[in-house]
Amino acid sequence: MLSVAEALSAVVREIEPFSPATIPLSDALGLLLAEEVVSDVDSPPFDKSLMDGYAVRADDIADGRALLKVIEEVTAGRVPTKSIGRGETTRVMTGAPLPQGSDAVVRLEDTQLDTLSDTVRIDTDPASSARNVMRRGASLKRGDHVFAPGRLLRPQELGALAERGRNAVGVRVRPRVAVLATGDELVPIDETPKPGQIRNSNETMLVAQLRVAGAEPVPLGIARDERTHLSERIRAGLECDMLLLSGGVSAGKLDLVPSELEAAGVRQVFHMVNLKPGKPVWFGVWDAAPDNPAGRQDRRCYVFGLPGNPVSSMVCCELFARTAIRRLIGYQNPEPQQVRAKLSVAHTTRGNRPTYHPARLTWEESEAIVTPVNWQGSADLRATVDANSMIVFRGVDRSYAAGDVVDTVLWDR
Amino acid sequence: MLSVAEALSAVVREIEPFSPATIPLSDALGLLLAEEVVSDVDSPPFDKSLMDGYAVRADDIADGRALLKVIEEVTAGRVPTKSIGRGETTRVMTGAPLPQGSDAVVRLEDTQLDTLSDTVRIDTDPASSARNVMRRGASLKRGDHVFAPGRLLRPQELGALAERGRNAVGVRVRPRVAVLATGDELVPIDETPKPGQIRNSNETMLVAQLRVAGAEPVPLGIARDERTHLSERIRAGLECDMLLLSGGVSAGKLDLVPSELEAAGVRQVFHMVNLKPGKPVWFGVWDAAPDNPAGRQDRRCYVFGLPGNPVSSMVCCELFARTAIRRLIGYQNPEPQQVRAKLSVAHTTRGNRPTYHPARLTWEESEAIVTPVNWQGSADLRATVDANSMIVFRGVDRSYAAGDVVDTVLWDR
Repeated sequence: MLSVAEALSAVVREIEPFSPATIPLSDALGLLLAEEVVSDVDSPPFDKSLMDGYAVRADDIADGRALLKVIEEVTAGRVPTKSIGRGETTRVMTGAPLPQGSDAVVRLEDTQLDTLSDTVRIDTDPASSARNVMRRGASLKRGDHVFAPGRLLRPQELGALAERGRNAVGVRVRPRVAVLATGDELVPIDETPKPGQIRNSNETMLVAQLRVAGAEPVPLGIARDERTHLSERIRAGLECDMLLLSGGVSAGKLDLVPSELEAAGVRQVFHMVNLKPGKPVWFGVWDAAPDNPAGRQDRRCYVFGLPGNPVSSMVCCELFARTAIRRLIGYQNPEPQQVRAKLSVAHTTRGNRPTYHPARLTWEESEAIVTPVNWQGSADLRATVDANSMIVFRGVDRSYAAGDVVDTVLWDR
Repeated sequence: MLSVAEALSAVVREIEPFSPATIPLSDALGLLLAEEVVSDVDSPPFDKSLMDGYAVRADDIADGRALLKVIEEVTAGRVPTKSIGRGETTRVMTGAPLPQGSDAVVRLEDTQLDTLSDTVRIDTDPASSARNVMRRGASLKRGDHVFAPGRLLRPQELGALAERGRNAVGVRVRPRVAVLATGDELVPIDETPKPGQIRNSNETMLVAQLRVAGAEPVPLGIARDERTHLSERIRAGLECDMLLLSGGVSAGKLDLVPSELEAAGVRQVFHMVNLKPGKPVWFGVWDAAPDNPAGRQDRRCYVFGLPGNPVSSMVCCELFARTAIRRLIGYQNPEPQQVRAKLSVAHTTRGNRPTYHPARLTWEESEAIVTPVNWQGSADLRATVDANSMIVFRGVDRSYAAGDVVDTVLWDR
């Protein structure tokens, strides 16, 4: 049986990141840049005033005081037309280009205009060149490398790309991920379960997890434990970039998922991973037949069979499906990101499998503190609502002391 | 001039959280519950098997070994019909209800079935009652309080609500927030700026920030520094729940925003806050006229005038607009959430205003470490792309040593 690390390596090895595609900048939030961006202009494109005030020659106000002749006023979007000589000044707004000859700006609050004589009295700190000025190219010079491929596009990166005039950008697009719950015991969430039945809450949860992970979920409803129906729903799911099934992967008599996936041409990569919860997790790869007449030879679908118990489903989605999504959209380190945190209480793990235990991570001063929540096992979804993370207890039948530092995977990032 | 804390208090005081509304569960990710949810059923609704295997009387396998008569097989979605007596067993799947008389489950791997005699040989650890069983109501009893109002709806909360059959849920909906950049120097991002012009990159950035903050952005383009045009665009923005303007709020001659907002009937709450960057930030409230014939007397719009420099815009959006959004959707503590972190390097702040300095927060072992990035002031958006947070340097002309613990606001949560 594979370890979690081996299973994650297999996911990364089998999955080919998407080819880059160009999409509107406004759709790129949360994706990773798939191209090199080089600046085609200096930024700012001119020496720029950082204040509303008067552009001056620093020499003229070396001691902070002067009476200067106002020769021009530059409003937003306009450019100065006159060069500033000794004893002269131009009124500028924040963001305006500096007139030739000037090299500093005195803020409005430190000036007093005499409109009759068009002179301004300056009373400020002794000034030097470049005060309240951002030099041309100070942020970025033409030809400077702006962003390398792999850069995560957050609001500030999108702003910087917009500044460069990039209204379209090369990224790897969000994968479309089908979600298919299997099991005769399931009913849609708006139906009242009869004895022995439960609601299909996994679909709701997995769809939300996929959204948080940056994918575009495609809910496919419930597949019955019956070969023809299951096989038809699996074929529908293979139209997407990924297919997540929940249920039907353990050793039960009606656990048809692995055999029906095989029948649909999905090549099994692994089945069973040494972890708790989630041991029966299944992963495989489907390639469109090379002689596919529709000419979609290069289409693949990555398929995860998640155990049906809600916490197993959730944990396996966070560990394996999320890694797959991050790999597809171009993360260099797609595996779950762990932080180290101090246990707030002693804890003993039981059993022979490494355990991903729902936990609550908080900050006290600059330190990460983590507390395992009361948890009754893979069916106990309620434990996860008290949690925001999972502690990785690698030991087998091992006792941890309060203050021990443990690996913790945060769910919300 | 207000301090940041006073300005945030004013935002919270002036803003009335939205009234609760019922929306589909599938749209509620990231919102806060606005109702009390009580369980109308036990969860699980029956004693439930946690494994594929055989339901037994623990008494029968006290020493771990037994030969039992198989009297029934319960598949998914079915219920047991026979009660288990001494020496009897029923085959069950993960999630199946336990038959009457049984109180434990032996996993399949520890059993060997003889199909001729319909008997199963058990060879397992000595068993006690409740092994591999989740008791009826163990997760939640009927009448138990599931969630209180104010609960953040993450994937696991949505799953738990789906389990309860809640396909619609009471929340405060995402505010619609108009974004209006002002300034004659601005051109749309797909145009090439002429001398003195710059691209409207703030709209791209603010729209993305609003999305991250949980709002629904409504970009309104560029308003010229001209009263009639600006006033018309402001009126369009007042149709939304919030209006963010960028630019036009400082002391420049063409800074028309405060006076045009006043002319549109927006009541100023504050203008100018003691912080860097972002001092000229403006906040006000617009109420639809009480005698409005359209009968929309209860409609309000909260208006922020953000300074036009990109870093000022970004920081003020994170501090003030985000607090407003969190207040509208029902956060009890809508103010920016700070973590404490250790400075990795010495740092000296200059000037007379508390500074929000772009910074990079990382984790080393269980400790949060923060490094101020090289930053040239409010026009230097590039500094923010190296950052994921901002350090709050409250001191005036103060030196901090490496290892000092400082407040830090993370941008991505």
